[in-house]
Amino acid sequence: MPEGLGCEGKRESDGTLAALWRLYVSVQRWYILLFSSFCPNRKFTRLPHLAGTQQNLRLAEQIRDEWLAFGLDSAELVWYDVLLSYPNRTHPNYISIVDQHGDEMFNSSLSEPVPEGYEHVTDIVPPYSAFSAQGRPQGDLVYVNYGRTEDFFKLEREMGINCTGKIVIARYGKIFRGNKVKNAVLAGAKGIILYSDPADYCAQGVEPYPAGWNLPGGGAQRGNVLNLNGAGDPLTPGYPAKEYTYRSKLKEGAGLPKIPVHPIGYHDAVHLLKNMGGASPPPDWRGALNVSYRIGPGFTDDFILNKVRMNIHTYNQVTRIYNVIGRIRGAREPDRCVILGGHRDAWVFGAIDPVSGAAVVHETVRAAGALRQRGWRPRRSLIFASWDAEEFGLQGSTEWAEENAIMLQERAVAYINADSAIEGETHTHTHISQRSQISKLGSGSDFEAYFIRLGITSGRARYTKNRKTERYSSYPVYHSVYETFELVERFYDPSFQRLEAVGRVRAGLVFRLADALIIPLDCKEYARSLTQYANTIQQLALEHPEAIQRYGVTFEGLFSAVDNFTQAAADFHQRLDKLDTKDVLAVRMLNDQLMYLERAFIDPLGLPGRPFYRHVVFAPSSHNKYAGESFPGIYDALFDIENAADPDRAWDEVKRQISIATVTVNSAANTLHPVA
Amino acid sequence: MPEGLGCEGKRESDGTLAALWRLYVSVQRWYILLFSSFCPNRKFTRLPHLAGTQQNLRLAEQIRDEWLAFGLDSAELVWYDVLLSYPNRTHPNYISIVDQHGDEMFNSSLSEPVPEGYEHVTDIVPPYSAFSAQGRPQGDLVYVNYGRTEDFFKLEREMGINCTGKIVIARYGKIFRGNKVKNAVLAGAKGIILYSDPADYCAQGVEPYPAGWNLPGGGAQRGNVLNLNGAGDPLTPGYPAKEYTYRSKLKEGAGLPKIPVHPIGYHDAVHLLKNMGGASPPPDWRGALNVSYRIGPGFTDDFILNKVRMNIHTYNQVTRIYNVIGRIRGAREPDRCVILGGHRDAWVFGAIDPVSGAAVVHETVRAAGALRQRGWRPRRSLIFASWDAEEFGLQGSTEWAEENAIMLQERAVAYINADSAIEGETHTHTHISQRSQISKLGSGSDFEAYFIRLGITSGRARYTKNRKTERYSSYPVYHSVYETFELVERFYDPSFQRLEAVGRVRAGLVFRLADALIIPLDCKEYARSLTQYANTIQQLALEHPEAIQRYGVTFEGLFSAVDNFTQAAADFHQRLDKLDTKDVLAVRMLNDQLMYLERAFIDPLGLPGRPFYRHVVFAPSSHNKYAGESFPGIYDALFDIENAADPDRAWDEVKRQISIATVTVNSAANTLHPVA
Repeated sequence: MPEGLGCEGKRESDGTLAALWRLYVSVQRWYILLFSSFCPNRKFTRLPHLAGTQQNLRLAEQIRDEWLAFGLDSAELVWYDVLLSYPNRTHPNYISIVDQHGDEMFNSSLSEPVPEGYEHVTDIVPPYSAFSAQGRPQGDLVYVNYGRTEDFFKLEREMGINCTGKIVIARYGKIFRGNKVKNAVLAGAKGIILYSDPADYCAQGVEPYPAGWNLPGGGAQRGNVLNLNGAGDPLTPGYPAKEYTYRSKLKEGAGLPKIPVHPIGYHDAVHLLKNMGGASPPPDWRGALNVSYRIGPGFTDDFILNKVRMNIHTYNQVTRIYNVIGRIRGAREPDRCVILGGHRDAWVFGAIDPVSGAAVVHETVRAAGALRQRGWRPRRSLIFASWDAEEFGLQGSTEWAEENAIMLQERAVAYINADSAIEGETHTHTHISQRSQISKLGSGSDFEAYFIRLGITSGRARYTKNRKTERYSSYPVYHSVYETFELVERFYDPSFQRLEAVGRVRAGLVFRLADALIIPLDCKEYARSLTQYANTIQQLALEHPEAIQRYGVTFEGLFSAVDNFTQAAADFHQRLDKLDTKDVLAVRMLNDQLMYLERAFIDPLGLPGRPFYRHVVFAPSSHNKYAGESFPGIYDALFDIENAADPDRAWDEVKRQISIATVTVNSAANTLHPVA
Repeated sequence: MPEGLGCEGKRESDGTLAALWRLYVSVQRWYILLFSSFCPNRKFTRLPHLAGTQQNLRLAEQIRDEWLAFGLDSAELVWYDVLLSYPNRTHPNYISIVDQHGDEMFNSSLSEPVPEGYEHVTDIVPPYSAFSAQGRPQGDLVYVNYGRTEDFFKLEREMGINCTGKIVIARYGKIFRGNKVKNAVLAGAKGIILYSDPADYCAQGVEPYPAGWNLPGGGAQRGNVLNLNGAGDPLTPGYPAKEYTYRSKLKEGAGLPKIPVHPIGYHDAVHLLKNMGGASPPPDWRGALNVSYRIGPGFTDDFILNKVRMNIHTYNQVTRIYNVIGRIRGAREPDRCVILGGHRDAWVFGAIDPVSGAAVVHETVRAAGALRQRGWRPRRSLIFASWDAEEFGLQGSTEWAEENAIMLQERAVAYINADSAIEGETHTHTHISQRSQISKLGSGSDFEAYFIRLGITSGRARYTKNRKTERYSSYPVYHSVYETFELVERFYDPSFQRLEAVGRVRAGLVFRLADALIIPLDCKEYARSLTQYANTIQQLALEHPEAIQRYGVTFEGLFSAVDNFTQAAADFHQRLDKLDTKDVLAVRMLNDQLMYLERAFIDPLGLPGRPFYRHVVFAPSSHNKYAGESFPGIYDALFDIENAADPDRAWDEVKRQISIATVTVNSAANTLHPVA
């Protein structure tokens, strides 16, 4: 467990914790067991377990049964009926190049070559973009680089390319794919093809799987292309998708793209890109394929009559999903809980995403259950969750958060997320709010509803790649059929030591949060982060000195609020230092303040146009769901403001957002005072 | 103190409480002192103290100083800069009848005759409708009875009267005046005149003031005509109106009427009504004036060329207001608070509204301060509030709630309101949520933000009129210059015993809520009310049996949720009965559940179009802010549904609202379970 995670010297039950650690660290070698082919957990990766399928339900039942056997007080399946999306089995999705007669000259692959040893497996879903619109749009292709906001700006403003009525092709990487799709829709495209470029999905000097861990040319990245902004099930935004819940009409569903979308691998992409015409790309738009990366629209003169056609028959369907929820009742404060959750559903085998995380949850439950059977209980309650349908927009975790929102708001001390434990091999990366290592949590995993909607202190920890030296996005075979047990065993963590380390960090966080007498959170660290974020956002505004002057934009109120917060945090920790830890009520009162501090940053009105992103300090970037933005309301108001159609209104919104941040930080400071 | 207010037999500090009562009941006779002309509190009614004026600031300072002297731990002024509205001093507002040349044939009074003994008083604001639009609309008059939704329906649907471009005249009474104005705007009127009809403002056999307590013919009712829906300051909805807060443009201000509005007395009204032409009114549209109450539009043939012109110069202005906030720190749970608040600002002297309430707060503070000086502290913290600008849309209380929303959400046990203590002489009327006497709190006073936005258990108690036998609305001289000290002393409460009784109830609630070991709230009573409300709303829906059938509308889920709640409440109280009251942490945990139960009924998304009305079980009626509606989301969806333009959509909304109620009641039931 890393040092400096919180307040030292305030533990009631060090003995218990030490016992836990002994058990946890030395008695068992779960992670080795876990990924050994003899271990029952091997079956987490043996079959596909896509959300909404029989296999994933069976896996849920098995996990529930094992958790009960491990010694939890309870473990149950909790279902929701949510909108999922699947390819049509009789009408496969593919991309064609068609000639002037409409005849197909080239068709993209219908599936990925299945890795050795898995030939017998049925029910491998072919690569697709979940929630794609149906349709067969045909037209000229435009290459849009990563499909980022800045890429479309460059296309439209500098290159003078209009994407209206075009089919765009974007390489995967840099940002969440849903944002690429949203940008394409905004640009007027009638379809978008996503492909994995070797520049982004092949590390240098590494072989494609199975010889190495690079993405083979026939592999492609599945994934949903929603822009949910935290809504969960698209048909029941804000409410749990139960039998009694009203569902919107499909056409009003939250975040559904209005155009067809489809992912392909780089072998197929070559065929689409190689004959493209139009302008040459800027240097940083070039990938690593042996093609010119011309922008289009359309093909070169020799192929000018050829068009690209998408054939997409993916359908949306309300489908039952199952979370597994396990509990250990707290000994002293059963009405306080710490949650460890990670998803179970995978696109195919999911050896990294999610099994490397699900295994951590499973083995933490095993350890907690073993302790429990020896008579131990943590001070606070523990909740373990195996979420379903994360891949379809964080649905299992969000629906459960919606069903339990009030309870969680009142009682949740922290949420620790357990998605992929290893997306690289370089070093551990810890994101957590309110600790010595505060970092901006973005989204793209199941902490979202807990942290950004409900304001529950959240953390994640994993091995990641070295972002400076490793250029590729995510890990190369991400969301492909090649995420097998063997991938991990051969390349990512042969001794399973990295996985074990991540497990220790995650479980360590959970156990300490649940068992420490004083919740190990540090308000002073929050104060330092707020100061830094206020400086950063002010700097961004100061890039427009004339407007700042003309519109009288000032950050004075915000800095004064941050000062109030800093002072209140210092005072709070002074009181904490002097606390008589035998005064049960005094301990509870301070713990309440620690627990509720993150809640204080929630604005019930939400961010503009994003009612379920309610954290004033942190939100997923509007331009990339994966990335976190600090003071997102102000950031978004300032974004591209130099091109605002109505500058008066735009700068008014900046001022409004600064004022909301100011009110919120002041409110948060207020909650650190001892008297109501 | 009334019996049966909650859980008996669970008090930690009966001794202290008994001491309090001895002090409170027998040592002093505050209410007699208070309203004696020798008492310093006499000055609460000696001068006008309109919000935003020097007098009202001086009164705030005086109250702060006295509260400190009484022995509170702290008392301070807390200011906000909010939008208020005043008549133009050089261009008075009035209504004219003009002839075909535009010459004024009749002008309404510019002020009320000042009562004897107050002739020297300056700064009596003339009758006006605060936040009226400015303008001089001229046109034909239409009589719209009380200006209720059903009145306009009858006009439009049965009488075929189109109010577009007309000036409407509505009698005061039955509903909040802001709703009348909203209805007039929706009907297309270009101005609205409000008048007090003797049928509604003169009790039979009673003389006009000063001989009796009826409204004199020259008296008129002031009041704001906003439709704020809980927004507080119209320019800063959702956020406190501090120096750092962004303000909307005036034209975007929340709830501001778009047409001129003006109130007149019945002497003036006769001139407008006596020559009206058009159809005869339905019998129940006739008031008690000696006129025909014809509907119009316009005057009879003899006067057909005459028109009515409004001359309105009232202006809106951002103005500083001051709450007084006093505190006593709790001995055991300083982080829990009970709030007693009432407004201080009055339209003129305000002897009933608000001084009969403000006096109760003041004398409660005196009692609490006296106890405090003898060494007593309540278990929980007490907060006393003298709100400003209630008359302008509950602004002082709402802005403070906005500034302290997070703190209150986490820490407030209950809010007790202290507006007018006597609006009649018949019997005490207690509205309170979560007690043996749950009653639907509407709005129109300062509990609104606490109860309906934040979900804090709230109560009010007062003497009211006998609603069955006394036909008049409110009390006759409500919001007129005749609300004098003498009015109360001569007619409403000569011995001040009624006021004392109300004081005991309010203070008794506050002291018990703050001092009882177990918060005296009853979840089982909430369950009974929910059952009743679910039945009522289902009955309403069943008035449309065909549609219920066709659209598959069912209340099954809601009843099942109510059953869950009922069971959870019973289980909770069983645990409460078995509670070891010496277990400090166990007591706190159960108290937390009691405190937070009301919060569980808050939907952060708010009601449709009313984001600050967030209580799913209770909200002010959309048709009358004064009245409470249960399951308001469902009620509003069902309202007038037989005339819906798009029945599919309308019934879809009914189903959606039933589902929101179901989710919410289930969530609330969840919070009564002991383990997180």
